[in-house]
Amino acid sequence: MPLDFRVVGRDPGTRARLGRAQTDHGPFDTPAFMPVGTRASVKGMTPADLALAGARIVLANAFHLALRPGEQRVRELGGLHGFMAWPGPILTDSGGYQVFSLGGNVRIFDDRVVFRSPVDGTAVEIGPARAMEIQRALGADLVMAFDQCGSFPMERDEADLCVRRTLRWARISRDAPLDPHQAVLGIVQGGIHLDLRAECARQLVEMDFPAYAVGGLMVGEPQAEAMKVLAATLPSLPEDRLRYLMGVGLPEDIVLAVARGIDLFDCVIPTRHARNNHAFTSEGVLNLKNARFKDDRGPLDPQCPCYACRTFTRAYLAHLARENELLAPVLLTAHNVTFYQRLMQRIRETIAAGTFGELVADQRPPGTVSGE
Amino acid sequence: MPLDFRVVGRDPGTRARLGRAQTDHGPFDTPAFMPVGTRASVKGMTPADLALAGARIVLANAFHLALRPGEQRVRELGGLHGFMAWPGPILTDSGGYQVFSLGGNVRIFDDRVVFRSPVDGTAVEIGPARAMEIQRALGADLVMAFDQCGSFPMERDEADLCVRRTLRWARISRDAPLDPHQAVLGIVQGGIHLDLRAECARQLVEMDFPAYAVGGLMVGEPQAEAMKVLAATLPSLPEDRLRYLMGVGLPEDIVLAVARGIDLFDCVIPTRHARNNHAFTSEGVLNLKNARFKDDRGPLDPQCPCYACRTFTRAYLAHLARENELLAPVLLTAHNVTFYQRLMQRIRETIAAGTFGELVADQRPPGTVSGE
Repeated sequence: MPLDFRVVGRDPGTRARLGRAQTDHGPFDTPAFMPVGTRASVKGMTPADLALAGARIVLANAFHLALRPGEQRVRELGGLHGFMAWPGPILTDSGGYQVFSLGGNVRIFDDRVVFRSPVDGTAVEIGPARAMEIQRALGADLVMAFDQCGSFPMERDEADLCVRRTLRWARISRDAPLDPHQAVLGIVQGGIHLDLRAECARQLVEMDFPAYAVGGLMVGEPQAEAMKVLAATLPSLPEDRLRYLMGVGLPEDIVLAVARGIDLFDCVIPTRHARNNHAFTSEGVLNLKNARFKDDRGPLDPQCPCYACRTFTRAYLAHLARENELLAPVLLTAHNVTFYQRLMQRIRETIAAGTFGELVADQRPPGTVSGE
Repeated sequence: MPLDFRVVGRDPGTRARLGRAQTDHGPFDTPAFMPVGTRASVKGMTPADLALAGARIVLANAFHLALRPGEQRVRELGGLHGFMAWPGPILTDSGGYQVFSLGGNVRIFDDRVVFRSPVDGTAVEIGPARAMEIQRALGADLVMAFDQCGSFPMERDEADLCVRRTLRWARISRDAPLDPHQAVLGIVQGGIHLDLRAECARQLVEMDFPAYAVGGLMVGEPQAEAMKVLAATLPSLPEDRLRYLMGVGLPEDIVLAVARGIDLFDCVIPTRHARNNHAFTSEGVLNLKNARFKDDRGPLDPQCPCYACRTFTRAYLAHLARENELLAPVLLTAHNVTFYQRLMQRIRETIAAGTFGELVADQRPPGTVSGE
């Protein structure tokens, strides 16, 4: 079995689970967070930096890599693991989200989507068969079914159509040839329509995927709506399979989703925030361009073991940020990824210790930014 | 004595010297190359990266740091060493070059220069007294006299005026108060007029600086002219003092200047080239955006011990460069700085072994770029 997943502990007060996943490229403990390496690089971090930050699995994007440098080139260069020199587990997104987030100019057919390439404007076709072909060539351990990613708001009719397409494409994705080390995840869609979500989950479970994902959440709807969807969806998924919440999110979103039974996350927030000079810290999110940091001799986060926190003052990091020095996004990215990995470690430790409920109770309202 | 410099070896066939400099922040062997950290950061490199690349002394820019974040702020934050967390030797440029390279809108008086701030357009005054005050606050080990940096071409009359101003300012710079650990270097100007250069050097030596620099070279004149200037200038400087060639240069410039008796260099070339996707290698300068690297499975430079060369293929680095990934300039900067430090190490080793002449004979014509 390409993905061996075991639930090894449970929180008594919530649906949070402690898990251990094993792939041909090594294990990772869950709940886990995947830094996003869209183009086979987590922006500004080397594989050594990622390992030091505590990341054990990373995400890359099949759609972007198929456009450039091309999936066959990646395959010939040793697959994604060899290409990006990341020996651990990798998950590739299928491209569904990217195709639909391109917005206009997307024509949807039963078996494929046609759109203009953002690279050169030529017409590009992608569908479940092609998405799986790309992902097979890239060689990630976990690959995603090709889905139609919903948006918010999405009327019931539209959501229903989205679910039906997603299910049709899920079956094609599941039956597509993959390499022996690869496992494909089915994706639950359905917007915030709870019955559609439950029905989508039920039908995917009938197809018996090795693991499942929840897509099209945190795309604009209130956090509470997203959590209702998780509560309505996850009980339909088998307890012994890994569950991945795509594209989420802020630390508080992650804690609440873990409490509802999610095992795996990815999000651009830690890395993108870093490039905008925002640092996640034990005091909240700090904007390093804020004037109050100009003379701050303290470390960025006294609780953080990352290189920036051990080496520099906030004043120096604020100087780098103001001067748009290359080192600012580099240091802040490593810091934010470290912060997220430490959050996941704390989640796992509290689940193991039976104190995860306290972590849930501690969550700040979403999006709180200090230092503005 | 804030700067203890000893010549510990000589090449029998050239004027190349092997030296050992000792500062309050540690030693460095010469000939040495200083990576440029204009705003108290070598773009994209941490202090740990710099040490790993072999750098032992770095350069920062008094002029830029006085504008932002302000030299008093740096002083309060532990001086440059504390601010940028570089415990080793630091040299600061006085600002002369930066003022004059701003071009128009610069009014020169006997005791100062008035120009518009590139930051906010306000009128800024700087002169030898102010330049030394800034450098004292920053706290570098080696600080530079405030000079009028010549340009090319520069008529004899203009060069003569430039030398006279530079000498007047050199005396003020020499007499300005500094902290006990700081040493000030006098700067030889005079364009390509050999007699003016020799006279400027002679008068500076009368002022008895602890070390000397040659400025205003490699600013557009042919390499051969610059080498003639060095050959005409250096014999006027005392044998037992460190000699620094400012802002130079390509590897072949460095080797030829060492052969004429230069001990210390700085230049933005390795770091700036890296940000333009150019890598210095044992095969010459490679432009990673060249199509021939797209499928190249080899390391960037098989002889280089840097992280990028040990970890990635040229094909992957070419992909990062083409996608403008943040990791491309980060990896290439560390690589190029490593290349320069290894060049200096080889220069020192060949001087010690008496084979430096072979290195001089091996030099390619300046500016050769492979892979274009």
